[in-house]
Amino acid sequence: MTATTPRRAAVVGTGLIGASIGLALRAQGWHVTGSDVDTSRARRALELGAVDALGSDGDAELTFVAVPVAAAPEVARAALAGGGVVTDVGSVKAPVVAAVDDPGFVGGHPMAGSEALGPDGARADLFDGAVWVLTPSERGSATAFTLVHSVVRSLGADVVTLAPEHHDRLVAAVSHVPHLTAASLMGVAARRAESEAALLRLAAGGFRDMTRIAAGDPTMWLDICAENRDAIVEVMDALIESLSSMRSIVQDGDADGLAERLGQAQSARRSLPIVAEPGALAEVRVAMPDRPGELAAITTLATELSINVHDVEVAHNVGEPGRLLLVVDADRAAGLVEALDAAGRSASAHELD
Amino acid sequence: MTATTPRRAAVVGTGLIGASIGLALRAQGWHVTGSDVDTSRARRALELGAVDALGSDGDAELTFVAVPVAAAPEVARAALAGGGVVTDVGSVKAPVVAAVDDPGFVGGHPMAGSEALGPDGARADLFDGAVWVLTPSERGSATAFTLVHSVVRSLGADVVTLAPEHHDRLVAAVSHVPHLTAASLMGVAARRAESEAALLRLAAGGFRDMTRIAAGDPTMWLDICAENRDAIVEVMDALIESLSSMRSIVQDGDADGLAERLGQAQSARRSLPIVAEPGALAEVRVAMPDRPGELAAITTLATELSINVHDVEVAHNVGEPGRLLLVVDADRAAGLVEALDAAGRSASAHELD
Repeated sequence: MTATTPRRAAVVGTGLIGASIGLALRAQGWHVTGSDVDTSRARRALELGAVDALGSDGDAELTFVAVPVAAAPEVARAALAGGGVVTDVGSVKAPVVAAVDDPGFVGGHPMAGSEALGPDGARADLFDGAVWVLTPSERGSATAFTLVHSVVRSLGADVVTLAPEHHDRLVAAVSHVPHLTAASLMGVAARRAESEAALLRLAAGGFRDMTRIAAGDPTMWLDICAENRDAIVEVMDALIESLSSMRSIVQDGDADGLAERLGQAQSARRSLPIVAEPGALAEVRVAMPDRPGELAAITTLATELSINVHDVEVAHNVGEPGRLLLVVDADRAAGLVEALDAAGRSASAHELD
Repeated sequence: MTATTPRRAAVVGTGLIGASIGLALRAQGWHVTGSDVDTSRARRALELGAVDALGSDGDAELTFVAVPVAAAPEVARAALAGGGVVTDVGSVKAPVVAAVDDPGFVGGHPMAGSEALGPDGARADLFDGAVWVLTPSERGSATAFTLVHSVVRSLGADVVTLAPEHHDRLVAAVSHVPHLTAASLMGVAARRAESEAALLRLAAGGFRDMTRIAAGDPTMWLDICAENRDAIVEVMDALIESLSSMRSIVQDGDADGLAERLGQAQSARRSLPIVAEPGALAEVRVAMPDRPGELAAITTLATELSINVHDVEVAHNVGEPGRLLLVVDADRAAGLVEALDAAGRSASAHELD
């Protein structure tokens, strides 16, 4: 018999996301300790097998903070006191990263399961194929980042690395404002339905698709709208301007203008990336001076080039400068090397078997 | 051996909807003749078994006009010259019904398969469980309406009867403006993506759901926006006002106002009707004077009460006034009788086995 010591993780907040992380980690042999301000929710997570034990774990190598955004900084700081690496899962990143400001903290945002359900909705495969954003800060340690990156990858997620402020502007456009728009569409239809009993019977597939996210729990959105206010207001202004211009086009009977708008949207929608089949991989090696922010600069450059970083590792050999190893799709490696060279960084690519 | 003479129908326009109607009718033993201005599309429908023959059919009991809205009136008038009943499937009804203005015409709108695909996307079960709006006009004959109603029901659709103008206002809210909004959301995101390669990788389920309909062919929407301009502009004004107010709420950090808006949308979305299991049925009999518009008034009253009319028949006994027989869910029959009585119509309900 072989005795192995399991790796230890903690999950604070055992709702849908926290409990799904617990299930996924336990499926890989981790020991997971869980807690929740709502003790009945924590007990339920234990019953469901999402955690091994309740409480805190001073030996946890990694703690996932899966609580509402507004509460995340305080919970993260408490977890950092234990000495391990800490990441969070909130939908807004800049205020959290700024408030925690610790080398052992890495901001994160798994883009899956946005409906705020309890642990009963948890699934071990929730993150399989999902995008999981990581937002390394200037202050963050490369070791902490590579640990979180590898664990998140092991849950099946694709990691996209972004600066925290950048993440917040992007999710305003693809998540927060679409949610508020779904609620507005539903509200406009429902107000008409008060005197129009037939209205909602006519709501076919397209309308159901567009308003589905409006069925989610509003609570988390109050938090999100407060924390990401500026980016949301900016995107809403752009959307209102776009709709106002579309309205004028319809009013004026401008068929050419309408065809152009709808054609652009059609081709953009059709080119939305889908999850690609895994192909050949390559390792890109890049010199990384031992200065804060270097890892963040390199990994976010890959994101800007739409290059998926499957794995990331820091290599230190005695007497040599540090190197960062990035595993990427083989057909993208040369482009990354070129961009890194152009940015004044010495890089090279190597095929992997 | 028994020889039966099949009922005969014609389909003008063999795209997705026309070919699906052909498949569904043929599956029930109808003889279907099809035609299309695009002869290769008509031939494809024949190959796929969506029609028995190409061309026109002077003996067709019923003709489905499945061409773009702008072309529908002319095609419908040509079909009416053959003497049978004619219905159409366009997404806008008032201009078509007004332009055709014939007792043998019944406006229709099956709310299924809105993406404009060719006959290769056709399915015999496309209308099973879908809502199919019929818009009887003041001029329309009760016989024509009951024929179209029974055939549409036999394809598995739920019939909702509405005045043409009413239909157009409602679909502006649940279909046309949502489509333009999906295109606007996609456009706002894509314009940002030009400089933000990461943006569309972050587009998760909610965004994909909300923009899916923007991937459809823009052509039919030019037609729809031209024909239903006033209703679309009115709903867009309401949506823009709602989004502007939502923007102010976010800007001002008004958590209570936001919670109220999102909560209303949540409960409205959760109460969207779903297709109910068939239950006990009842027949409501109502006196119907032989005057134009009587049938339209009675059936649209049922719609206003959210009562699903499963079947409709006109009964004429010699020496008696005409009666309309409506088959409805048994638990709604008393309410319909009460409303009809209140409207000065003599009505009664009878359970069906």
